[in-house]
Amino acid sequence: MIPVQPPVIVLVRPQLGENIGKAARAMLNFGLIELRLVAPRDGWPNPAAGPAASGADIVLERAQVFDTVADAVADCAHVYATTVRKRGITKPVVTPEAAAGAIHAEPGRSAILFGPERSGLETDDVAVARTIVTVPINPEFGSLNLAQAVILIAYEWSKGQALAQPPETELPVAAPQDELDGMIAQLDAMLVAANFFFPPHRTATTRRTLRTLLTKPGWSTQEVRTLRGVLSALDGKKAKRDLSSS
Amino acid sequence: MIPVQPPVIVLVRPQLGENIGKAARAMLNFGLIELRLVAPRDGWPNPAAGPAASGADIVLERAQVFDTVADAVADCAHVYATTVRKRGITKPVVTPEAAAGAIHAEPGRSAILFGPERSGLETDDVAVARTIVTVPINPEFGSLNLAQAVILIAYEWSKGQALAQPPETELPVAAPQDELDGMIAQLDAMLVAANFFFPPHRTATTRRTLRTLLTKPGWSTQEVRTLRGVLSALDGKKAKRDLSSS
Repeated sequence: MIPVQPPVIVLVRPQLGENIGKAARAMLNFGLIELRLVAPRDGWPNPAAGPAASGADIVLERAQVFDTVADAVADCAHVYATTVRKRGITKPVVTPEAAAGAIHAEPGRSAILFGPERSGLETDDVAVARTIVTVPINPEFGSLNLAQAVILIAYEWSKGQALAQPPETELPVAAPQDELDGMIAQLDAMLVAANFFFPPHRTATTRRTLRTLLTKPGWSTQEVRTLRGVLSALDGKKAKRDLSSS
Repeated sequence: MIPVQPPVIVLVRPQLGENIGKAARAMLNFGLIELRLVAPRDGWPNPAAGPAASGADIVLERAQVFDTVADAVADCAHVYATTVRKRGITKPVVTPEAAAGAIHAEPGRSAILFGPERSGLETDDVAVARTIVTVPINPEFGSLNLAQAVILIAYEWSKGQALAQPPETELPVAAPQDELDGMIAQLDAMLVAANFFFPPHRTATTRRTLRTLLTKPGWSTQEVRTLRGVLSALDGKKAKRDLSSS
C-alpha cells in the first residue's frame, strides 16, 4: 500500500513574514511539514517568520520558493484553491472536511493554495486548481486570517491520518501538473497558429476557459500522453506513440 | 423543537487583551457570540482587545466578567474543559468533533472552558467540567495558541449548524450524451483524416481509450461547444463561435 502523502501547503504571494511563521506553526501542529512559497512579497528568508513560528523551524527551513503557482505545483496531482467567496469559476467547491477526505482517498500528491493576506487568490491562481475549498463561515462575518485558514485545513487533514483506509480500487493517479501544462502548451501553440484566439481582447478569457475545462478531468499520465498523440496527429506530425493501453 | 443553543466560550484568567480579541474574532467567524471572562488579568474592558477582534465588536461588547469558573458556568448544563494534555483526572476525553456532536444532541446550555495562554487550565478549573476536550495534535509539536484552540472548537460546532452548510456548488450540468458524441465524431473524423488510427487492429482499442478519457470530465454544453470550436480551428475552419462565456 502506498503511504498517504501529506499535502503541500502553498502560500501564494504572502505579504508578512509573521504570517508565514504562523502558518508554519499551524501546519506543524497537525503534522504538515512541506511549505512552498510563491513570490513572497518581502523575499525569503524573512526574519519575521522565525519568531512567529514558535518553534516550527523545520517547516521554515525546508520551505521552497517558486516564481509561479504553476512551478510550485508542477509535481502535484491534485491542486486545491482556498477561497472565501465564489469567483464565478465553474469548479467543484468542497468543505475542508471533504477535501481532507479526498486527499486521503486519492493517490498522488496534493497541494493546497492560499492567497495573499489582503486579497486572496487571483482568478488565474484559482484556474490552476481542480477544486475549490471553502471554509463554511458566518456569512455576516467572514474574517479568517491566513494562519487560521491553514490550521483548519491541516486539522481536518490530520483527522484522517490514523483512520485512512486504502482506496478500494486502484484509481489511476492524476498526472502531475507539469504534464498537463505541457499538453496545454502544445494545444495553445497549435491554436495560435490556427488564429483561434480572436478577437485579441478575449484571448486571456478564452485561455482561462480552456485551462479550466482541461483541468477538470484529472487525466492520468497515460491519458495526457494519448491526448498529446492526438494533438501531434492533428498537427500533421506522425503519431508514433503506443496508444493501446489506457 | 428546541432551537440549538450555541455554546458559551469561557476564557479563564486570560492574560493578553489581544488574545481575547482574537478569540472573539475566531468565535464570530463561526457564529458564536457569547463570551465570558473569568478574572481577566488586566481587567475589562481591555483596549488591546478591540483592534485584535477585527470587527467582532459585538462579541466583546456582550462579554460578561465573572470572578470564578463556577459563577461563569452556573447556568450551563454541560461544561467542557479544553486541555492539551490529560492531567490525571478521570473524566471522559473527547475530540472537538465529538464535543460538537454532543452539544448539538443534548438539550441545555453548554460552556467550553479555555485556560490562560501560558499555563492552561488548572486542575481545579478542570474539576468543574464533566468532559475534557482535547484537540488531537502532533505529539512532537503541540503549540496551539488560545485563539486557535477557540477557532477549532467553534469551527466544529458550526458544522452542525444549518447556517454553516457548504456553499452550493453551482456546477454546470454535464452536456447530454448526444452533444458529447457529436464532438467525439468530429474529432474522430479529423483523426481518420490524419491517419491517427494505426495500426488498424488497434483502432477499436484506441477509440475506446479516447472515448473513456473524453467522457471522464463531464463537460458542460458550453465546454463541449468551446472544444468543438477548438477542433474546427485546428481543422482549418474559421472558429465563429463565441467563446467568451463560462
